[in-house]
Amino acid sequence: MPNRRPIDEAHDFVRRHIGPSPQDIDAMLATVGADSLDQLMAETLPDSIRIKQPLSLGTPLSEPDALTHMTELAAKNQVFTSLIGQGYSGTILPTVIQRNILENPAWYTAYTPYQPEISQGRLEALFNFQTMICDLTGLDVANASLLDDATAAAEAMALAERAVAKKTKAFFVDRDTHPQTLAVLRTRAEPLGWSIIVGDPDTELEAADVFGALLQYPGSSGALRDPRAVIATLHKKGALAVIAADLLALTLIASPGELGADIAIGSAQRFGVPMGYGGPHAGYMAARDSLKRSLPGRIVGLSIDSHGQPAYRLALQTREQHIRREKATSNICTAQVLLAVIAAMYAVYHGPDGLAAIARRVHRRTATLAAGLKQLGFAPINETYFDTLTIEVGSKRDAIVARAEAEKINLRIGASSLGIALDETTTPATVEALWRAFGGELNYAAVERDATDTLPASLTRTGDYLTQPAFQDYRSETELLRYMRKLSDRDLALDRAMIPLGSCTMKLNATTEMMPLTWPAFGSLHPFVPRAQAQGYHEMFARLEAWLAEITGYDAVSLQPNSGAQGEYAGLLAIRGYHLSRGEPHRRICLIPSSAHGTNPASAAMTGMDVVVVACNSHGDVDVDDLRAKAEKHSAELAAVMITYPSTHGVFEEHIRDICDIVHAHGGQVYLDGANLNAQVGLSRPGDYGADVSHLNLHKTFCIPHGGGGPGMGPIGVKAHLAPFLPGHPAEGEALNGVLHGGGTVSAAPYGSASILTISYIYILMMGGAGLKRATEIAILNANYIADRLQPHFPVLYRNLRGRVAHECIVDPRPLKTTTGVTVDDIAKRLIDYGFHAPTMSFPVPGTLMIEPTESESKAEIDRFCDAMIAIRQEIAQIEDGRFKVEASPLRFAPHTVHDVTSAEWTRPYPRTEGCFPAPHSRTDKYWCPVGRVDNVYGDRNLVCSCPPIEDYALAADYARAAE
Amino acid sequence: MPNRRPIDEAHDFVRRHIGPSPQDIDAMLATVGADSLDQLMAETLPDSIRIKQPLSLGTPLSEPDALTHMTELAAKNQVFTSLIGQGYSGTILPTVIQRNILENPAWYTAYTPYQPEISQGRLEALFNFQTMICDLTGLDVANASLLDDATAAAEAMALAERAVAKKTKAFFVDRDTHPQTLAVLRTRAEPLGWSIIVGDPDTELEAADVFGALLQYPGSSGALRDPRAVIATLHKKGALAVIAADLLALTLIASPGELGADIAIGSAQRFGVPMGYGGPHAGYMAARDSLKRSLPGRIVGLSIDSHGQPAYRLALQTREQHIRREKATSNICTAQVLLAVIAAMYAVYHGPDGLAAIARRVHRRTATLAAGLKQLGFAPINETYFDTLTIEVGSKRDAIVARAEAEKINLRIGASSLGIALDETTTPATVEALWRAFGGELNYAAVERDATDTLPASLTRTGDYLTQPAFQDYRSETELLRYMRKLSDRDLALDRAMIPLGSCTMKLNATTEMMPLTWPAFGSLHPFVPRAQAQGYHEMFARLEAWLAEITGYDAVSLQPNSGAQGEYAGLLAIRGYHLSRGEPHRRICLIPSSAHGTNPASAAMTGMDVVVVACNSHGDVDVDDLRAKAEKHSAELAAVMITYPSTHGVFEEHIRDICDIVHAHGGQVYLDGANLNAQVGLSRPGDYGADVSHLNLHKTFCIPHGGGGPGMGPIGVKAHLAPFLPGHPAEGEALNGVLHGGGTVSAAPYGSASILTISYIYILMMGGAGLKRATEIAILNANYIADRLQPHFPVLYRNLRGRVAHECIVDPRPLKTTTGVTVDDIAKRLIDYGFHAPTMSFPVPGTLMIEPTESESKAEIDRFCDAMIAIRQEIAQIEDGRFKVEASPLRFAPHTVHDVTSAEWTRPYPRTEGCFPAPHSRTDKYWCPVGRVDNVYGDRNLVCSCPPIEDYALAADYARAAE
Repeated sequence: MPNRRPIDEAHDFVRRHIGPSPQDIDAMLATVGADSLDQLMAETLPDSIRIKQPLSLGTPLSEPDALTHMTELAAKNQVFTSLIGQGYSGTILPTVIQRNILENPAWYTAYTPYQPEISQGRLEALFNFQTMICDLTGLDVANASLLDDATAAAEAMALAERAVAKKTKAFFVDRDTHPQTLAVLRTRAEPLGWSIIVGDPDTELEAADVFGALLQYPGSSGALRDPRAVIATLHKKGALAVIAADLLALTLIASPGELGADIAIGSAQRFGVPMGYGGPHAGYMAARDSLKRSLPGRIVGLSIDSHGQPAYRLALQTREQHIRREKATSNICTAQVLLAVIAAMYAVYHGPDGLAAIARRVHRRTATLAAGLKQLGFAPINETYFDTLTIEVGSKRDAIVARAEAEKINLRIGASSLGIALDETTTPATVEALWRAFGGELNYAAVERDATDTLPASLTRTGDYLTQPAFQDYRSETELLRYMRKLSDRDLALDRAMIPLGSCTMKLNATTEMMPLTWPAFGSLHPFVPRAQAQGYHEMFARLEAWLAEITGYDAVSLQPNSGAQGEYAGLLAIRGYHLSRGEPHRRICLIPSSAHGTNPASAAMTGMDVVVVACNSHGDVDVDDLRAKAEKHSAELAAVMITYPSTHGVFEEHIRDICDIVHAHGGQVYLDGANLNAQVGLSRPGDYGADVSHLNLHKTFCIPHGGGGPGMGPIGVKAHLAPFLPGHPAEGEALNGVLHGGGTVSAAPYGSASILTISYIYILMMGGAGLKRATEIAILNANYIADRLQPHFPVLYRNLRGRVAHECIVDPRPLKTTTGVTVDDIAKRLIDYGFHAPTMSFPVPGTLMIEPTESESKAEIDRFCDAMIAIRQEIAQIEDGRFKVEASPLRFAPHTVHDVTSAEWTRPYPRTEGCFPAPHSRTDKYWCPVGRVDNVYGDRNLVCSCPPIEDYALAADYARAAE
Repeated sequence: MPNRRPIDEAHDFVRRHIGPSPQDIDAMLATVGADSLDQLMAETLPDSIRIKQPLSLGTPLSEPDALTHMTELAAKNQVFTSLIGQGYSGTILPTVIQRNILENPAWYTAYTPYQPEISQGRLEALFNFQTMICDLTGLDVANASLLDDATAAAEAMALAERAVAKKTKAFFVDRDTHPQTLAVLRTRAEPLGWSIIVGDPDTELEAADVFGALLQYPGSSGALRDPRAVIATLHKKGALAVIAADLLALTLIASPGELGADIAIGSAQRFGVPMGYGGPHAGYMAARDSLKRSLPGRIVGLSIDSHGQPAYRLALQTREQHIRREKATSNICTAQVLLAVIAAMYAVYHGPDGLAAIARRVHRRTATLAAGLKQLGFAPINETYFDTLTIEVGSKRDAIVARAEAEKINLRIGASSLGIALDETTTPATVEALWRAFGGELNYAAVERDATDTLPASLTRTGDYLTQPAFQDYRSETELLRYMRKLSDRDLALDRAMIPLGSCTMKLNATTEMMPLTWPAFGSLHPFVPRAQAQGYHEMFARLEAWLAEITGYDAVSLQPNSGAQGEYAGLLAIRGYHLSRGEPHRRICLIPSSAHGTNPASAAMTGMDVVVVACNSHGDVDVDDLRAKAEKHSAELAAVMITYPSTHGVFEEHIRDICDIVHAHGGQVYLDGANLNAQVGLSRPGDYGADVSHLNLHKTFCIPHGGGGPGMGPIGVKAHLAPFLPGHPAEGEALNGVLHGGGTVSAAPYGSASILTISYIYILMMGGAGLKRATEIAILNANYIADRLQPHFPVLYRNLRGRVAHECIVDPRPLKTTTGVTVDDIAKRLIDYGFHAPTMSFPVPGTLMIEPTESESKAEIDRFCDAMIAIRQEIAQIEDGRFKVEASPLRFAPHTVHDVTSAEWTRPYPRTEGCFPAPHSRTDKYWCPVGRVDNVYGDRNLVCSCPPIEDYALAADYARAAE
C-alpha cells in the first residue's frame, strides 16, 4: 500500500462524505431520544449479530494521497494498441462528451427515470439511443440498453424461447461467435434445460430442430457472410433469427432488419465508450414490432403530459420482471444508461455522415492491411470483412506476437491463427507496425493505392438512417455542449437535491472517487490483454476482493457480475453448483419471503429453481413459523432461502440467525440479498451470522453513481464451500477446482465493469474501517430522525421491538386516500414542486412511500425534506377541511410547470404561488420540471419509442385537446 | 513536433470550432450578397494589407493527437516538491471544486458580470471572496481580485500616491520583500518619476520622506516581525502603510487591520489554486473604508433589484480607469475571477476552523523542521516564522541543494543561504528528506515531540473571522456541490446561449483545449523551478512565441503580460525603452483616437506619456488629417500612436498603412491594439503594414475562456528593434542586451499565467494556418450576416466603403429613444427575457449596442438572436403605436422574473406569458434570471461589499418597500 500520511481534519474524507456535522449529530440524537450513536445502534440491531471488532481495512488515505496511489496503480497498467477485437474496439470519446456527461454530476448522479417529470433530459437522450439502434439495425423497437453484448445475446435467446413457444429447447449458435458470448449462452441455457448447438449456420442449421439461432455479423473472425438464406431456413422452421451486429459496420452494410432478422443485439461500446478493461458499456437489443411486449429491459416511450404536450417516460412497465417473478426467464432490472447516453451523443455529434466516414476509413485501413499482408505471404482466411482479419500463421505465431508486442500492439491469439481488428483509432503507422510484426517493411500509402475494398455488393446498406433532427443539428462543439446542458437542466439529480429513494442508497458519489475512471490507464485497456499489461487492475481487484470479504465476513469474492440482479443470479448458480457437486440435483426449492425484491424470484427461476413464497407477519418480518414449516415440508428438495437484510421493510429482524439455522438444518443455503448492506457495513457481517452468499450493490453501498439508471456492479461474496462455484471466464482459462469455468460465465468480461471498480475501491480506501462504520451509523441515525420527525404526520409502518428503523423507513399515507382521495402519486408529484425527487413508491407495500436518506445528506437537507412532507400533510388537511376538493388541489395538479402558473386565466382555488412556490426555499433557485404529470396509459396505448416523425408529437397534442 | 495523422472529417477540429455548417455558410453568403468567402474578404479588408501566403504553422493535429502531444510535453516537465516559497505554495485543490468550477463550462465560459441580473451566481462567489479578504486582513473593503501579488503591490503604491497627495514621490519597500514584487514596483515607479527606497523598515524608514511603504508580512525570508511601530512611524509622516500578507498565516497572526495598516495586498494562490508555473492566481487588495473610492479593480456590491430584493452588482463603477483615462495611474481592467472564486470556495469548504487547522499544521511542521535543522547545526536565521525558514549554509550550499534535488525537492537558493517554505502538502516524510539533504537522519515524530511553536504572543490573532453562513454551511461534499451548482445555475454563460459581446470575442473554449490545464504536470510547477524541470513548458513557450510571431508578422514575442491592459503597458514600455536607448527621452507624446479602448490612455499615462487625442470622422474612422496635423505639431516629441485595428467601430479602415507611415515619418512608433485581432488572423498581419508592437488577447482571439471576468493573458509581439525592450524578470537573470531586465518586469511570474498558455497553444495546434484563416472569415461572415439581418430594424452605424463590417457591428437604437423613451438598457434587459446576454452597451458609441458573434456561433443560434432583436423592435413599435407606454412596457419591466409573472395580481397591459416567454424557443428550457433589474444608484449610495450582516438584506428590502 502507498505512502500514507496521517489524516488531519482538513483532509479527512469521512467528514466530507457524511452529511451531518458533529453538532447536527448531537441534535439529531436528541430528537430520536438516544444518548449516543452506540446506544442507537444497540437499539437498532440485534445484539447477537453486532460485530465487536473494527473492520480491518488498513489506515485510510486522504483524498490527495488516494489519487497519488491511483496514479501509482495506473502506472502498473500498460496501454498498448489492442487489436484483439472480440466485441471491444478502440474508440475516441469526444472530450466535450467526456467532460460534460461522463464527468458531470448532473448526469452521473441521476437516478433511474421512474419519475418521468424530473427525467425528461435523460429520457430524451435514451430516446435518441433507441432511435439510433432502430435505425442502424433496421428493426422496429429497441430498448434503452442492456448490460453487455453477451448477456444481450442470452436475453435474446430467452426472448426467442418465450416468443416461439416450441417444444424444442435447442438454440443454435454460429460457431463464428465471440467465445464469451457462447460461454454466457451456455451458462444461461443449462439450468433451464435448454441445449446449445454450435455450428456453421450455412451447413449445419438445416438439420437442427431449434427455437432460434444467433448469427454474429460480421463474424468473430471478421468474416462477413450474407445471412439471408440462413434466416429463411430459420423462419421456415418457425424459429427466430437473432443477429449479433457491429453498430459501426451497420453504417455501411445491410441492416439485420433488411436481412430479415427478428432480433438484433450487440454492444454500443465502440461509439465513444472507453473499453475500460471490460466495461461498463451499453449492450443493445432491437426487435420486430410483434416482439415488443416481450422485449426485456427498459423502453423509453413518448407520451403526453397533463397539458397534452409531448413527454417521455418508461413505457410498457408491466413487462418488467417484478411482475413475472417466478415465471421469469430474465431478471434484467437495470440498464447502462450513462453509457447509452454517451453512445447516443457520439452519434448525435458525428451524425450519419460522420459515422459512415469513420466506418469507411476503418474499412479502408483494413483493406490496406489485408493487401499488405497478402504481399507478405499472409493472405487472411476471411476474404470478406469489415474491420477484422484472421490470419493462419502456423508455427510463426509466437515470433509474430513477440514482434507485435515490441511494437506495443496486442493481437488476438488463436491456436495457429492471429486475429487483427482495426478501429477508429488505427493510424497508418499502426498498420505499418503490423506489417513489420509480420516480417515486412511496407509503406502505407503505396499499399493503399492498390488495395480494394471488399464489402460484398449484396450486403451494401440501402436507405437513409439517422435523418432525425437530433442527429443533424449538433455538429459544432458549442451546439452539442448546449444541447447536453439543456437536457441535464431538465433533470433533477443529486447535485441539486436529496433523492430519498428507499433501498436505492443515493449517497455521495465523491469527485475523487470518480476521477481515475477517465484516465487512459484505466479506460484504454481491452479486457483480454495479457495480464502483465493489467497489473494495476489486478492489484486493485485483489485488494478490493479482500476488503469486500472482510466487510461481509465471506471467504471469497467474484467481481464478475455487472449488476445486482446478475449478482443474485451468479450467487444462486453457485448454490446450484454446490448442490450438484454433492450429488443433490433435486435440491431445487427456493424459499422467498413475500416482501422480496422482484428480482429474487426471477433469478431463482433462471437457475431452474422453484420458488416457494414465505409469508411475512404484521410487523413486516419473515414469519419464522411459516418458514420453518415450508423448510420442513420441502426439506429434501430445499436449495436455498433468499432473504434481504435488513428487510425490504427497513428493519433489522431479530430472528435472522434462526432463519439461517433453520435453512441450514434442512440442507439449504442462505442467499442474503445485499441491497440493504448500507445498514450493515461495519456493524454486522452476513458471513458471521449464517449467510452463505450475497451480492453487493457497489452502485448503492459503495458509491458507484446510479448514472441515471446504470451502470451498476454486483460482485458476490461467498463462504469457502461455495468458492469453487464462483463465475469463471473463457479468457481466464479453464479454472477453479476442475469445474467448468467455476459457476459458469455471467458477464461478457471477466471482471464485469472493471473500470468503475476504481470508484468503490477509492471509497473504501479513503473511508477505512472506522469511517465505513461511522457512515452506517449516520445512515441509521438519519433514517430514524426522519421516521421520528414524520411520525406525527404520517404513520411509520415498521419498526423493530425497540422502536427503531434501520437505514430507511416506510410512511403510510393510505388512510389519507380513504379520507381525501389523495394518492401516493399525488404526494410524489407534489414533492417535485417542493424541489424533491419522490421516495420509492408502493414498494414493498403498495400505496406507501419508502424513504432512505443515506449518511451523505446533511441535517439541513433532511429538515428541508421533512418540512416539505409535513407541509404536504397540511395541504391534505386543507382537503379534509374542505378548502378545496382533491381534484382541484395543488396535490392533484402537481407538478406545477411554469406554464401552468403563467397562464392568463387562473381558476384554481389556490393562488399561483401556492402552486409553484409551496415552501420558502422553493422561491429561490427553483427547479422547474419541464412537463406536467405524464399520462402513462396514453403512452402505452400509443407506443412511440424511436424515430418520432414530427407528426407524432402533433398527434399527441391533438389527442389531448380532444380529451379535454 | 508529434506524430501527426491525416485529419479526417470525423476528427477535424476546425469544423467543431466553427459554428456554421458548409450549407449554412452558403445561405449566409447569399444573404449578405457575396459569391464566396474570398469575395467577402476582398470587400471587407483593404487589399493592400491582405496577406497572400497562408500562415506557416505546420499541419494541424486532431483532438486526440493534440492530447497525445500534450501528454508528451507534460512528460518533459518534472514535478518536484517545491519549497521555494516567494509567494507560491503547494496547495490542495479539493477535487469537487476542480471538477465543478475549474473544469465546468458553466463557470469558465461566463463573461465579466457587467450584466448583474444574469451574473448573480458568480457575483455571490466574488462577494464571498471579498468577505474572506476583508475578514482575514481585518480591513473594511476588498476588491474582487487583482492580477497577482506583485502587480497588486504596484497598485497599492499607486493608490497610496493618489490618496496621500504629498510632494514626495518616494515609496519605501521592505528589503525582506519578494524580488519579483520589488522588480514590478521599480518598473512601475520609474516612468512616473517615483523613487523606490529599499531598506530595513525598523531602522531605515524613520529618515525617509515617503508617501507610503510596503511591508512583507511574514517577510520573504520567513521572518515574522511586529510592524506596529513602523506603521505608527508612517502615519506620523502622513504616509500609508501597505502590508503584503500571506492569507494562510493571517488565520493565526494579527491581521493588517489590527496592526494599523491602511492597505493589504497579496495572493490567494495557496487557497487551492495550482501554482501553474506562475499562474493564473488571484491577487487581492483590501483597504480602510476611507480609501474605497480609490481602490483599483472591480468591487462587487450588494444592492436591490426592482422588487426591493437583495441583488449583487459591480459597485462604484465610475472609479474605473476608462473614466480617469489619461489621468490614470492604473490601467487595471480585468480580474482573476475564476481563481478568486476557487480561492473563496476553498475557504467556504474548509471554513475558519479548517483553515486555521491547516495553518497550525503547516506551522507545526515548520517548527519541527527548524528544531531538526538546529540539531543538525543549521539554526535558521529567522527565529520567528510562520512557514518559511532561511538558513545560512555558506560553502555547503551546493552539496545540500544537490542532495535535496536527489530527494526531488526544490529549495530557494541564495548566495550563501537556502530558503525552505512549507505548505499544506508538506508531509513528515518531506521534512525527514529535508533533514537528509542537510546531512542528518532524524525521525519526524521524535523531533516534533520537543519542537515548540514560535508565533510571537504579540502577534496572536484575536477575534473571529469567517463567521458568515457561507463559511459555515457547506462542509460536506454534497452540500458544497449543490451550492456551486445553485450559483452556476443563476448565471448565463456560453454553455447555454450566445454571448454577443462586441470586442469581447466570446468564442468556443473547446474542452480539448481546457483539459491539460488541470494535469499535475502543468499545474504543480513552481514558477522558479530550475529550467530543467520545465522543459515541456519551455518547448511550448518557444513554439507558441514562434506561432504568434508568424500570425502577427512580428519578430519577437513576450509571454509575460498577464492581461490585455498589462500587454498595452508592456508594449508602451518597450517603445519608451527604445526612445530612451536612442537618446530621445523627450519623445513622450502618445496620439490616441477618441474611439480608443479606455485602457489605452491609462496605459500611456502609466508609462509617463502625455496623451493627445486624435479625432474620428463621421464614419468612425481616424481622421487622418487630424492625425497628420497632430503628428506634425508634436513631431519632435512624438513617441507613439495607439490604434485599434479593425477599429473599435468594427471596421477595417482603409488608411491604416498611411497612419503607420505618418507616425513613422515623425519618429514615432505604432502601437496596434490587438483587441480585434480575431478579424485579422490569417488575413492580415500588423507587422506587415507598419505596426511596431501589439498585445494579443489570448482570452479573446486564442480561446482562453473569460472565466467570468478573468484570467486573461496579453502577450506582446514586437518588431526586432523593440525586442531588447521586452519584459524581463529577476528569476530569469539580468537579461536582454545589457538593458536591466529588458523592458522591466510587468508580472509576478516570468511567463505570466503560464498554465493557461496551454489553451491557446492547443487551439493553434488543432486549427493550423488554414483553420485559423477560415475561423476569421466565418467571424466576419457572421458579423456581416447579423448586420444585414438587423439593418432593416436597427440602423447599423459603421461600414466600410464597400458596405462591409469587420467581425462586429454597431446597431443604433438612439432614434427610438427619442420617439419612444426606450433606452439601450431596456433593450439589453429585454434580451435576457429572450434568453440572451446583452451585446456591449454604449461602447464605443454611447446609446448603441455592439455585437460580435465570433466564428463559433451557428447560423441557428445567430438567427435566434436576430429574431429576438427583431421581435424587440416590434415591441418598440407597439409603444410607437400606443399599445402601451414605455413605463408599462415589457421592455421597461425586463428582465421578468418568475416571481413577476406568478404574482397574484397582474395589471400590466400585456399578458404574463408575453412578459416571460416572448419568443417560441423561450417556452422550453427557459433561463430564469433570479433578480429583477438591479438598482445601481441604491447600491452605490448604500455600499455593502463584504460580510453582510443579515440585517443589511432586511434593510435593503425595507428601503424598497418605502420607495414603492
